[in-house]
Amino acid sequence: MLILVTNDDGIEAPGIMSLAAAVEDIGHVVVVAPERERSAVGHAITMHKPLRATPVNHFGKGVKAWSVNGTPSDCVKLGIEALLDSNPDIVLSGINRGPNLGTDVLYSGTVSAAIEAAILGIPSAAISLASYDATDYSVAARFARILAKNIHKNKLQKDTLLNVNIPGVSYDRIKGVKITCLGTRRYRNSFDERKDPRGQQYYWLSGEAVDEYHNDRCDINMISQNYITVTPIHFDLTKFSLIEELQKWEFKF
Amino acid sequence: MLILVTNDDGIEAPGIMSLAAAVEDIGHVVVVAPERERSAVGHAITMHKPLRATPVNHFGKGVKAWSVNGTPSDCVKLGIEALLDSNPDIVLSGINRGPNLGTDVLYSGTVSAAIEAAILGIPSAAISLASYDATDYSVAARFARILAKNIHKNKLQKDTLLNVNIPGVSYDRIKGVKITCLGTRRYRNSFDERKDPRGQQYYWLSGEAVDEYHNDRCDINMISQNYITVTPIHFDLTKFSLIEELQKWEFKF
Repeated sequence: MLILVTNDDGIEAPGIMSLAAAVEDIGHVVVVAPERERSAVGHAITMHKPLRATPVNHFGKGVKAWSVNGTPSDCVKLGIEALLDSNPDIVLSGINRGPNLGTDVLYSGTVSAAIEAAILGIPSAAISLASYDATDYSVAARFARILAKNIHKNKLQKDTLLNVNIPGVSYDRIKGVKITCLGTRRYRNSFDERKDPRGQQYYWLSGEAVDEYHNDRCDINMISQNYITVTPIHFDLTKFSLIEELQKWEFKF
Repeated sequence: MLILVTNDDGIEAPGIMSLAAAVEDIGHVVVVAPERERSAVGHAITMHKPLRATPVNHFGKGVKAWSVNGTPSDCVKLGIEALLDSNPDIVLSGINRGPNLGTDVLYSGTVSAAIEAAILGIPSAAISLASYDATDYSVAARFARILAKNIHKNKLQKDTLLNVNIPGVSYDRIKGVKITCLGTRRYRNSFDERKDPRGQQYYWLSGEAVDEYHNDRCDINMISQNYITVTPIHFDLTKFSLIEELQKWEFKF
């Protein structure tokens, strides 16, 4: 099994080191990841400047790795279509430092990398440690290994990815694994308004998350109860249920 | 009706000028748009640097407008949560120069701005002129006006947006309006490999679109027949149909 590993925290982040190490014994690992942190880049791709891929060797012997001056989606595209000799069997993105839950997955570079893989026909998973304070990636890494084996064995549909969040707690406090849907996450007071030393106004994105549980099975709800959440994701944004209604609208112009 | 107008081609692009002008008589127009082109940024948001909003006045009398050093999603967030005195009734994003069809909407700043509005509970639409050569936005602008009136009158669901593409042809060649789903768009030979004057390799994203029509009703198919396409979009990426199957997987670790 050929495993392409990427992330959005940058190629030197501890999360990607743990992830690559965790799956080294179940497949051949190749790493293509951003040279620096590219969080909250969403599904951005680089069209207006050339991309460069620089070989790096801090993943140890036998692991080919490239650092790329682009986004996570760029890394997956470039890895699959230019750097790797053959298509990977699976793409793993992470382990992200911090959660990727609910609506926030739209902003996530980690998840976008996995979506890019699915668009290119490669089953994939995005893996996040759902805590900004936690520094121990070992439980998440162990789960990532089991997950990768499952994706391969059960032949996850090619146009699908799994978005996985692992609670930032010790192994014995994890209650189990739940298959979830994405919740909706909204924020209160999203911008902090300030003045610079020259009296000019500027804004920092901030705000407190105001969770909305659409139902008990959503990821936001389950992670708060210390379950590992696994949400199947697709990339067809069509809201099919509305097509019939829209056909009644009057568009003459 | 308070209408927030934004785009991803930048606040001075002809498409946003046409759009703002087209809806001036059906509501009160406010513009918040990126200071420069931010195409292919996907749903990126700016977390690591402060945002600044600079008033501009090239939209004419009575139209408040701000240029923002951020992405289209930033503009919508900042507009709604910091700059506008009250919530807009509708957000219009465009008119984009070039198509936003099928899977490509994931990369689109134009569409992401409309998604951001829907996340914030404001009905919205992304409007694109489906040609890179066309310079006449008048047909698209006329349609945008009808569309805005429809969204308001028919009370489009708050968590939904409409992704609209207008063929880059004259009015008399447009065959009609179709309610569509998103097609899948893949690319062949996505990277152009080159050497710089110092012999270092680099890559340009390129490649020819290889359209895949999932069914006749998809946007990619309909636009090629000179129909205006209107696709309802939601932002819940959960693939509900897979939840049951995943519950059978063995995750013990």
